[in-house]
Amino acid sequence: MRDLRTNSLAGELLIALDRAGSVPMHRQVEAAIRDNIRSGRLRLGTALPATRTLAADLGVSRGVVVEAYQQLVAEGYLTSRAGGYTQVAIGPGPAPAPAPAEPAPAPRIDFGYGRADTVHFPRAAWLRSARRVLTETPHERFGYLSGHGMPELRAALADYLNRVRGTAAEPANVLICNGYAQGIALLIQVLAKSGAKRLAVEDPSADDDCRPAAASAGLELVGIPVDDGGIRVDALERSDADAVILTPSHQWPTGAVLSAEARAAVLRWATRRGTLIVEDDYDAEYRYDRAPVGAMQGLAPDHVVYAGTASKTLAPGLRLGWLVVPPRLVDGVVAAKVLADRGSPALDQLVFADFLSRGEFDRHLRRMRPMYRRRRDALLHALREHLPELRPAGIAAGLHLVTRLPPDLDEAAVVAAAALRGVGVHGVTPYRIGNAGDGGLIFGYATLSERTIREGIGLLAAAIVEVRSGRR
Amino acid sequence: MRDLRTNSLAGELLIALDRAGSVPMHRQVEAAIRDNIRSGRLRLGTALPATRTLAADLGVSRGVVVEAYQQLVAEGYLTSRAGGYTQVAIGPGPAPAPAPAEPAPAPRIDFGYGRADTVHFPRAAWLRSARRVLTETPHERFGYLSGHGMPELRAALADYLNRVRGTAAEPANVLICNGYAQGIALLIQVLAKSGAKRLAVEDPSADDDCRPAAASAGLELVGIPVDDGGIRVDALERSDADAVILTPSHQWPTGAVLSAEARAAVLRWATRRGTLIVEDDYDAEYRYDRAPVGAMQGLAPDHVVYAGTASKTLAPGLRLGWLVVPPRLVDGVVAAKVLADRGSPALDQLVFADFLSRGEFDRHLRRMRPMYRRRRDALLHALREHLPELRPAGIAAGLHLVTRLPPDLDEAAVVAAAALRGVGVHGVTPYRIGNAGDGGLIFGYATLSERTIREGIGLLAAAIVEVRSGRR
Repeated sequence: MRDLRTNSLAGELLIALDRAGSVPMHRQVEAAIRDNIRSGRLRLGTALPATRTLAADLGVSRGVVVEAYQQLVAEGYLTSRAGGYTQVAIGPGPAPAPAPAEPAPAPRIDFGYGRADTVHFPRAAWLRSARRVLTETPHERFGYLSGHGMPELRAALADYLNRVRGTAAEPANVLICNGYAQGIALLIQVLAKSGAKRLAVEDPSADDDCRPAAASAGLELVGIPVDDGGIRVDALERSDADAVILTPSHQWPTGAVLSAEARAAVLRWATRRGTLIVEDDYDAEYRYDRAPVGAMQGLAPDHVVYAGTASKTLAPGLRLGWLVVPPRLVDGVVAAKVLADRGSPALDQLVFADFLSRGEFDRHLRRMRPMYRRRRDALLHALREHLPELRPAGIAAGLHLVTRLPPDLDEAAVVAAAALRGVGVHGVTPYRIGNAGDGGLIFGYATLSERTIREGIGLLAAAIVEVRSGRR
Repeated sequence: MRDLRTNSLAGELLIALDRAGSVPMHRQVEAAIRDNIRSGRLRLGTALPATRTLAADLGVSRGVVVEAYQQLVAEGYLTSRAGGYTQVAIGPGPAPAPAPAEPAPAPRIDFGYGRADTVHFPRAAWLRSARRVLTETPHERFGYLSGHGMPELRAALADYLNRVRGTAAEPANVLICNGYAQGIALLIQVLAKSGAKRLAVEDPSADDDCRPAAASAGLELVGIPVDDGGIRVDALERSDADAVILTPSHQWPTGAVLSAEARAAVLRWATRRGTLIVEDDYDAEYRYDRAPVGAMQGLAPDHVVYAGTASKTLAPGLRLGWLVVPPRLVDGVVAAKVLADRGSPALDQLVFADFLSRGEFDRHLRRMRPMYRRRRDALLHALREHLPELRPAGIAAGLHLVTRLPPDLDEAAVVAAAALRGVGVHGVTPYRIGNAGDGGLIFGYATLSERTIREGIGLLAAAIVEVRSGRR
């Protein structure tokens, strides 16, 4: 029942009509002419056939064509001229964009860091929570949001964090954002607005979230060296920074735990100078060989912003993050959040609140911890066996570890040789902010099976032999 | 089995131990001391009992207390002094924030605008899509995202918008954001970065999303008057603006449709000056008495950014919005999105893509249209009956209409008198950018039953009588 006709204008106007379909004839004619104009088949200035002529050609009533022309005149595709004829009013649309180039192939064995193993995303439990939320939530909760986040999730997170991370969180001070990335971007905006000029970060550190945000807010980023006890407080004190971002429980990437003395010293620094500490508690949920270290925020809730994320525990794609902020900063961060996007999606927040308060999150973590520990153990074992000279550090916690490289091995050469063998591993040097330091490799192990880890380290060992022999 | 003991320090240390629970004793002691420090019961500098003493008081082994003290030293709550005793190292946490003041009571009958009736959110169909997504999506799709959005949703939206709104969208040019609010904020950042100085908006218009974004990007906002044919192009041409935000299909709030001549003239302006048109197609899905007017983006995809949202069709709480941008702007907007939050949540996008491509969105709109039309008709009928002098406009489409006020009625006085009777209605004046104009009232009717609409207009009529008599 599809019928394709061309009109008298030398086949210019290609119109396919579906006489059995539910789309009215005039809409079909209208759409076809629009397509002809866009594709350039009907050029700017071309006169269209008289309505009577086209109607006869197409076997439709004249009213159909009149209505189609009128609509396209109203939309600006056609103009009606005084002489009674109708003209094309615009040129063709742009050529479709060329297909984007293929991205570089992903490594076959990727020791990338910073993400949960989404194979084990708790789909069934998440769906149960989604069903409860979609069944039971009053409809007005799907309306516009506050910039704070949903009260259910803020209360559930305050409970969870106070219980598990030793924070001093009140629901009123918990704010929901789209992952750590948005949280730190909002904080940096608020800091800049309050007159901050210099933002200290650990060196090395993962600055890919804060660096562009700081640049766009006009804040200078200052790298403060890190040693085995975490950030060097003497250097921080000399830095004249207005705020510092720390990973005190498990420094990224070195894995150092900020010592008690350093914690106290950083807090004294913050109190004395009225500066802000941002505690990036990115992988606190995973501790293998020691008790978890409580969050610094619990020690000084007036000086510390606690930042957490579901990216390392559930999935990065959820874009669920949270901040616990000092009371004086709540209004500023909420205003920045409202300006950014008027609040995070309601459904996800309600589902996560249900998931948390029913103990599903604890259950999920209990299931994941031994698996990640086995992967870490497989990695340590393989390193000991194939690359004993690498000396792993930061192994007691988290989802990654770091190894220093012997001075005779060039970091970039090792990373490149590994890549050639299909093994993805990051060097430490690209994460340095300005202070020189030893070469090193960062191994994320969360998403690889024990067998793959062993294979990857074997390939890396071969790559290192190659680098050494090539250099000689 | 819960047992509450106080130690020898004059009842200072209040420790409750649950001997039957699953939490290890040392963690319980640790948590209790932490709470005592935070609450101020244990003050800065206070010496803690010797481990042996406290262990005896609590009826636990000395190792339990040693471990608890060590952990709290590591976290910075306690310090170990040379003399072998242990001291509290920090002061109490801040007092909990006072409960926030009660917000002003919401009006009983709220003619607020700009939102779908969430009573009719398609929960069952949404849940079916969520189940399919959670069951069938490959796990790697829950990982980190691109700033473009999920390909499934970008393709489904391109299909939908080309079919229903007459856009010329390629999936490559469709970008997903957290509602219109984030979309316009990102665009304004990109415009400012490219050197734009002045952003034109319709006057009156809803500038609550773009005004703060423009201010924070350093763009000047210029109000261009609107008449019955939409924005006044002569004023736009004189404005020296680098971009303009338009609601061409249904001007907000006046309801005017941008005439064909004005469309062509605005496009000529944009082409000639190389400026950008942002087409805010906020309520395109609802048309009652006339054919929908196709989107301007379809006429000039190189000069128009199309912006849409699910807030008016499904629920604002979803925070789902989309942009169709000219190819040259894709990279800039994506970079701004990555900087803002690294991409919108994956699950919501996949669910909406499934919902769209299975025709559920069309079904939902078919169900809602007659309901909204009945509400609009009830509103028109009630206005004719009780307030014939108000003359409604912009009635053929959308989820709101606007009425001018007779010159003898002060807009603010009418809004205030209505509020006193429990009726929420917005005046037009607060939405004017700088050009004077008649008073008017904006009536959103999407979320009110026909009965409530009639009642609300009756109350408003009484309020207006009151205003008139009070003035005499």
